[in-house]
Amino acid sequence: MLRLSKRYPFSASHRLHSSELSEQENARLFGKCNNPFGHGHNYVLEVGVCGEADPESGMLLPRAELDRLVRKAVLDKVDHANLNADVAGMRGLVPTTENLALVIGRWLREAWEKEFDGRPVRLDRVRIEETARNTFEVTYG
Amino acid sequence: MLRLSKRYPFSASHRLHSSELSEQENARLFGKCNNPFGHGHNYVLEVGVCGEADPESGMLLPRAELDRLVRKAVLDKVDHANLNADVAGMRGLVPTTENLALVIGRWLREAWEKEFDGRPVRLDRVRIEETARNTFEVTYG
Amino acid sequence: MLRLSKRYPFSASHRLHSSELSEQENARLFGKCNNPFGHGHNYVLEVGVCGEADPESGMLLPRAELDRLVRKAVLDKVDHANLNADVAGMRGLVPTTENLALVIGRWLREAWEKEFDGRPVRLDRVRIEETARNTFEVTYG
Amino acid sequence: MLRLSKRYPFSASHRLHSSELSEQENARLFGKCNNPFGHGHNYVLEVGVCGEADPESGMLLPRAELDRLVRKAVLDKVDHANLNADVAGMRGLVPTTENLALVIGRWLREAWEKEFDGRPVRLDRVRIEETARNTFEVTYG
Amino acid sequence: MLRLSKRYPFSASHRLHSSELSEQENARLFGKCNNPFGHGHNYVLEVGVCGEADPESGMLLPRAELDRLVRKAVLDKVDHANLNADVAGMRGLVPTTENLALVIGRWLREAWEKEFDGRPVRLDRVRIEETARNTFEVTYG
Amino acid sequence: MLRLSKRYPFSASHRLHSSELSEQENARLFGKCNNPFGHGHNYVLEVGVCGEADPESGMLLPRAELDRLVRKAVLDKVDHANLNADVAGMRGLVPTTENLALVIGRWLREAWEKEFDGRPVRLDRVRIEETARNTFEVTYG
Repeated sequence: MLRLSKRYPFSASHRLHSSELSEQENARLFGKCNNPFGHGHNYVLEVGVCGEADPESGMLLPRAELDRLVRKAVLDKVDHANLNADVAGMRGLVPTTENLALVIGRWLREAWEKEFDGRPVRLDRVRIEETARNTFEVTYG
Repeated sequence: MLRLSKRYPFSASHRLHSSELSEQENARLFGKCNNPFGHGHNYVLEVGVCGEADPESGMLLPRAELDRLVRKAVLDKVDHANLNADVAGMRGLVPTTENLALVIGRWLREAWEKEFDGRPVRLDRVRIEETARNTFEVTYG
Repeated sequence: MLRLSKRYPFSASHRLHSSELSEQENARLFGKCNNPFGHGHNYVLEVGVCGEADPESGMLLPRAELDRLVRKAVLDKVDHANLNADVAGMRGLVPTTENLALVIGRWLREAWEKEFDGRPVRLDRVRIEETARNTFEVTYG
Repeated sequence: MLRLSKRYPFSASHRLHSSELSEQENARLFGKCNNPFGHGHNYVLEVGVCGEADPESGMLLPRAELDRLVRKAVLDKVDHANLNADVAGMRGLVPTTENLALVIGRWLREAWEKEFDGRPVRLDRVRIEETARNTFEVTYG
Repeated sequence: MLRLSKRYPFSASHRLHSSELSEQENARLFGKCNNPFGHGHNYVLEVGVCGEADPESGMLLPRAELDRLVRKAVLDKVDHANLNADVAGMRGLVPTTENLALVIGRWLREAWEKEFDGRPVRLDRVRIEETARNTFEVTYG
Repeated sequence: MLRLSKRYPFSASHRLHSSELSEQENARLFGKCNNPFGHGHNYVLEVGVCGEADPESGMLLPRAELDRLVRKAVLDKVDHANLNADVAGMRGLVPTTENLALVIGRWLREAWEKEFDGRPVRLDRVRIEETARNTFEVTYG
């Protein structure tokens, strides 16, 4: 199996806070990530696609097409944004990187179906580095 | 499938030497890693856990709980230690990073069962970077 | 000359916005860094100290003492904070990393004078990585 | 399952160009990667092997033996080479990193069969980083 | 003193070869870097500027202006290029990274004088990483 | 001014312990770095040389000559060694990275004078990364 992974950095801010929990429970559960005015990260999104290389171009898919898809489906929504206030798809969710990875995966799969349907290449996984120490990954079977 | 990977650096020393082999065989097999007074590394342990995000917290598990488990089950035993002399679980084993990964995996699985049993999250893999060029990984099916 | 540099990561959010400028001037000057709800970074602070190694300990200064100073003088104020709302020393300043480096340098020099005065070691420079591509540095002659 | 991954950097140049396509199609498909005199990369090859650790040595396989195999089967052919002109195995292929990974994987599997046949260790995957942002991987079931 | 450093990756190929030397002298002096069809690197250019932060914007200079200058003065000439064949300013020079750093420094200083003259900020140094192990730097007094 | 920096990784072990201090003072001063059987690091030595590029070769000095000097003067003594037991030049010194940097600098300057005397290039600085967070540097005026 052949896979291409492309990395896309973006910067965003968030506050971990659940409206279902009391102030104390929020503070206990999320610690300093619950600070009222939020904090932020240089996230790195890594998109993995797998399939067959096109015999003519020798590529799984043209880089510029993948970049365009990721920019439109993801980066335009989250880069230099506040994940609590600016991102419609995160409404009602605690903006942990687990939830962010699940939402970004959903966005990419929908965009993929619309724009890349029928190609011998599929979206395979979505990885987000939140810091150099914490990484989150969603894989699709 | 959703996975969280957290990285934990630690520093340790070791000497690759098998008591079952002659001096010459040790020297031939392990080269300068067999030097009598040992050498050391900045290891990085990466712990991978997978499962379901908790709907309330949006997290696979609270970071501080995972940190505590890893500190108690692993880092307290190997950080700033000599793997030949200081680490009971490595007794009788050549302290290669293969063996270190297998032993650390065992420690983590035992601690997991004791402390995290019943959670919808499981230990998925243990990776150790020995240097920027050599990485070892144990995965659990 | 002998120098020690220690790196301290922290996460914070900010919005680049000057109260002296119109909305349009702010947007033109700061681009997407002016988005109303802000964004964030994994900053890395690097503190450089230089001088003589202590003959008895072989160290410029004990690591734990430097860590304590930096934590108290800097990290407790900026880690997991919003630089616009949470940090008293940044009030009235656009929270660019240029200004952040100047303010952090001031904090460290004041703390240094109070706690490390008379040692044969001095604060030499303060560097902040905002992203992997943008770094800011203040050096003291 | 236990896996060792070793990384091997090499430098090479290439020009993305398909003889089956017109000048315009090449330019459109490959963009600046189609520039006539080529460009280059610091590639990093990562070789993954998995199996059982040898009980006597505690190693999947001696590092020096793996290094020798990779040097002979791969690095001697591609390091400081032009992938279009110097590498027999790439003749007739567009030298994308997809194709390079497939060819390097073939070389390694052939060398493995000749030299490491019968060992309880097998070649598991080949990864090539073309830049810090683009990585390609071939995995063997 | 306050300094901003920005990093710009680019990919290029080169062959180390001096027309003043015999084939043998070239081979002896440059080793495999003298291979006839060349090889390449992912270079990283780091541009250092120093001076006063503008009191209104809090910035040494707007990032987008520096990016535009570097793109026009440097990246458009060397990115995805062959340094022997494509770059007029390197004609007659062995395309070592020493020479490349000197030439890029000249380009940037000329562009700086034309476009940024009179600002309280000056070009301070040019650094080029050729590989993770080799870095070259030109500093201006 | 033109400078070349080359990086050389090596692995070593050490125990921070001063024979002039009591057990308690050692424990208090060096913490877990005083553990009796030592620990270790993947050090990275960075050697900085500056001067004029040779007009014929376009290089400050041939890479292979610098590599040979560093290997002979430094790496052969410290790579895969125990800094307390194996390294004659460290005898009587606490093997902090401050002392290691000073000793390595001395070795390199002596070797430089013997082998590179009269060249328009001089040794400018020695940097050692002990971990990703701690770096030590000696600069020569």
